[in-house]
Amino acid sequence: MSKLLFQEQVERWGMLEVSCQGPAEGNPFVDHHIQGVFTGEKETVKTDGFYDGDGVYKVRFMPSFEGSYRFTISADFLEKEETGSFVSLPAGEGNHGPVRVADTYHFAYEDGTRYYSIGTTCYVWDLQSDERIAQTLETLKASAFNKIRFCIFPKHYDYNLGEPRSYPYEGTPMDSSVLTKENFWGYTGKTEGNDWDFYRFNPVHFRHIEKCILALQELGIEADLIVMHPYDRWGFSQMTKEQDDFYWNYVIARFSAYRNVWWSLANEYDLMKNKTTEDWERYGAILCEKDAYRHLRSIHNCMGMYDHSRPWITHCSIQRQDIYKTSELVDEWREKYHKPIVMDEIAYEGNIQHGWGNISGEEMLRRFWEAACRGGYPGHGETYMNPDDILWWSHGGTLHGESWKRFELLHDIMCETPGNGLMPLTRGFDEICAVPQEAEGEEKPVKDYYLMYYSFMRPSFRDYYFDDETKFRVKVIDTWEMTVEDRGVFSGKFRVELPGKAYMAVQIKKEA
Amino acid sequence: MSKLLFQEQVERWGMLEVSCQGPAEGNPFVDHHIQGVFTGEKETVKTDGFYDGDGVYKVRFMPSFEGSYRFTISADFLEKEETGSFVSLPAGEGNHGPVRVADTYHFAYEDGTRYYSIGTTCYVWDLQSDERIAQTLETLKASAFNKIRFCIFPKHYDYNLGEPRSYPYEGTPMDSSVLTKENFWGYTGKTEGNDWDFYRFNPVHFRHIEKCILALQELGIEADLIVMHPYDRWGFSQMTKEQDDFYWNYVIARFSAYRNVWWSLANEYDLMKNKTTEDWERYGAILCEKDAYRHLRSIHNCMGMYDHSRPWITHCSIQRQDIYKTSELVDEWREKYHKPIVMDEIAYEGNIQHGWGNISGEEMLRRFWEAACRGGYPGHGETYMNPDDILWWSHGGTLHGESWKRFELLHDIMCETPGNGLMPLTRGFDEICAVPQEAEGEEKPVKDYYLMYYSFMRPSFRDYYFDDETKFRVKVIDTWEMTVEDRGVFSGKFRVELPGKAYMAVQIKKEA
Repeated sequence: MSKLLFQEQVERWGMLEVSCQGPAEGNPFVDHHIQGVFTGEKETVKTDGFYDGDGVYKVRFMPSFEGSYRFTISADFLEKEETGSFVSLPAGEGNHGPVRVADTYHFAYEDGTRYYSIGTTCYVWDLQSDERIAQTLETLKASAFNKIRFCIFPKHYDYNLGEPRSYPYEGTPMDSSVLTKENFWGYTGKTEGNDWDFYRFNPVHFRHIEKCILALQELGIEADLIVMHPYDRWGFSQMTKEQDDFYWNYVIARFSAYRNVWWSLANEYDLMKNKTTEDWERYGAILCEKDAYRHLRSIHNCMGMYDHSRPWITHCSIQRQDIYKTSELVDEWREKYHKPIVMDEIAYEGNIQHGWGNISGEEMLRRFWEAACRGGYPGHGETYMNPDDILWWSHGGTLHGESWKRFELLHDIMCETPGNGLMPLTRGFDEICAVPQEAEGEEKPVKDYYLMYYSFMRPSFRDYYFDDETKFRVKVIDTWEMTVEDRGVFSGKFRVELPGKAYMAVQIKKEA
Repeated sequence: MSKLLFQEQVERWGMLEVSCQGPAEGNPFVDHHIQGVFTGEKETVKTDGFYDGDGVYKVRFMPSFEGSYRFTISADFLEKEETGSFVSLPAGEGNHGPVRVADTYHFAYEDGTRYYSIGTTCYVWDLQSDERIAQTLETLKASAFNKIRFCIFPKHYDYNLGEPRSYPYEGTPMDSSVLTKENFWGYTGKTEGNDWDFYRFNPVHFRHIEKCILALQELGIEADLIVMHPYDRWGFSQMTKEQDDFYWNYVIARFSAYRNVWWSLANEYDLMKNKTTEDWERYGAILCEKDAYRHLRSIHNCMGMYDHSRPWITHCSIQRQDIYKTSELVDEWREKYHKPIVMDEIAYEGNIQHGWGNISGEEMLRRFWEAACRGGYPGHGETYMNPDDILWWSHGGTLHGESWKRFELLHDIMCETPGNGLMPLTRGFDEICAVPQEAEGEEKPVKDYYLMYYSFMRPSFRDYYFDDETKFRVKVIDTWEMTVEDRGVFSGKFRVELPGKAYMAVQIKKEA
């Protein structure tokens, strides 16, 4: 009888988990290694396993195809290779596989279904209480968000002084009772008072994050995992190279078989002063080597952007570079990097003291439409003051703002794009004009669909002329009031009356 | 008995007009020349006169000092020099002299009174009916505007197809009954159908403009005269070099003795395709030579800016270079040109189809405060649709928008600047911080006064710390609601509660 425990069948892009007992004495994280080779008709995948505590070792695998698979598991503590087999079933409803880059600037799930990213950020929603996590998931379920950025490590920052529900390592944290809203900056980047064994992970911490990843998967939401970040009072941002690599390998072994995982190497990488470009490149290399599923990889900046042209970076994860122009720069970055542009931080809707966290719902929605109509993908966050200091941007919970309610309409409109994602078309200074892009990296417009966005401009009418023959159906979209008005079919030179208010769009679509 | 007619006394910076009879036959504009030399205790000024029709020749003079003046007038048609004298009296109330550049980036009247420019644009308000002109002056009187840009030549443009009340030359215009809102672009820059004598001015046209300049002067408003522009169906933008120079000399002879005149060489100079840099430089040289009073000189752009570092340009007259950042670029231009930055066109409040003419009142007001707090000077215009196509930006009349009502508060706050005008101080990304500038071109901040502007940001509070000792009075300004709330005196580190809404400012002023 095999020593292995595993499921007999999983969905395509589901997760097979193979576990077995092994030694618990010593430091199993360091002392022992387990790995698997999974073979189906169309692929053979070799992947590392990990120690999950209590003498249990696991190897995980995500089948990219349907059909019969067999596998062998080897470990230094197993006398011989153990084998098994399972069946990969057709993907179930809502399972489209991992998200991939499609047509240079856009995304699609592996089954070909287009993915139009509407992201949000809740840095440590996963490290809150069960009640708050449930609340966050309810909120997400009622929203249009299909991507969320969050951290594996806990966060130490303004409005984020509490203890996380668990720590990633065995050991004890500094005494946080000394912290106040005034003195906390002084503890940022400090390690004193902490006592961690950076070679002994806390499996409870990681198992919990996996539960969160799965819960998101069930909601059809991508988990954009922030693996490292500088908001730290525990020393997690100041580990040695060896400790960092040890962490990266563990994270990849645990998380990479979840189809909805994206890798964000860091939030504000440039604030991690004791990491060098060599370090970031090394983490990237580890990911490329060890993540057998080639999940999306990005790295997010504070001031200066990372060199997004590096080959291991699949898409640009960008924080605004300017207070006034944020999404407006998407065109430039498309041309510079020839990768999808994800505006993961375009300031947050809210009213805190910081300039990055106090824009209005109107301005957030405007930045969303600007990003989308310039052929990029916008990201949200919310920082409204409240008596309990529970800000969505960090804790999750409930949303208090106005912009999020209006993203579903944007997503619906994005999904109506007839081609391969939107691209901006230069037409003067009177509107943002988005058109579909031709397939596979060709930055060529398909001119049978136009999405005109008027941003803060307030025209009372607009005249259009494309050609003499084509019949276009015209819809007027009030992005703020969430109305779509079918104005009928036009051709030749035609005028569209508009209400002379801000945040309007006009969709002009060739009649079939 | 002298052949000259003139007043016996004028105010300092008022206008002395000396007139005499001369030949009316032939072409007096070309055939005859008249000039004067005016001598007081502190100045001797030589200036050209002009032919005003009906056999009347005039020489005008603005005394820059008080006291007794004598003058001699010579003309080819006078047998001998004629002389006269007059007394320059102390300036009356509201008469502070011409506006000058002061302290590199700012303006002051010649008597030293600070001038904080709050401009508007009504391109051809002066060429409308008497009723509309009266209405415009009433509107200006009720506003905070202290500068208005307008044209000497009539304007041909969208919403501007009507005939002007008069033409600058003798002759006949093209038949404008052929024009429609659809075909008028086709007539732009055309000369066909016009019949002008570019060597015979129409004195009625110029006398009327002088009436308008004087009416503005009485309201304390600077007349920023746009001498040339490209919105033309009459050929006035396509005259020869000789005709252009003839025009410039006439304009200078007529208008320069009005203390409230500024010279704008052109609106959108770069759209005048058959004028070259040499032409603009030559006009500038004529102005420097012939305008004895050194009125302010600027040149306004459409796309690319003129080289504002040219020595004859006294200040930058700028049209926005970007849809999103306009006033926000004032800092950069200050550093580049070391001259006052006047944002003469930052888009217009309104709702017409064009992107340059459909921003909201809120956005216009935001751009005004941004410009002011970055050490520049904002300009307004209004383009609201209405059944009669009477848009303030071109015709004057009444105002329909929301921003203009709020400029008086901004002007009041600008006038409270204790130093020599505002300059921006870099303090991060959370606010625009303006401080007073030290005297005479020193770009050094005086740190006993801070004007914080929050633009579209919506902080619920802000913490400030300047030093431990100084006592500051803090006022919270709602720029939109036009309220100023005195919060009392603070020192050391202090917090100011704010309403978490947009368009707020905080004034922090050292207690005397």
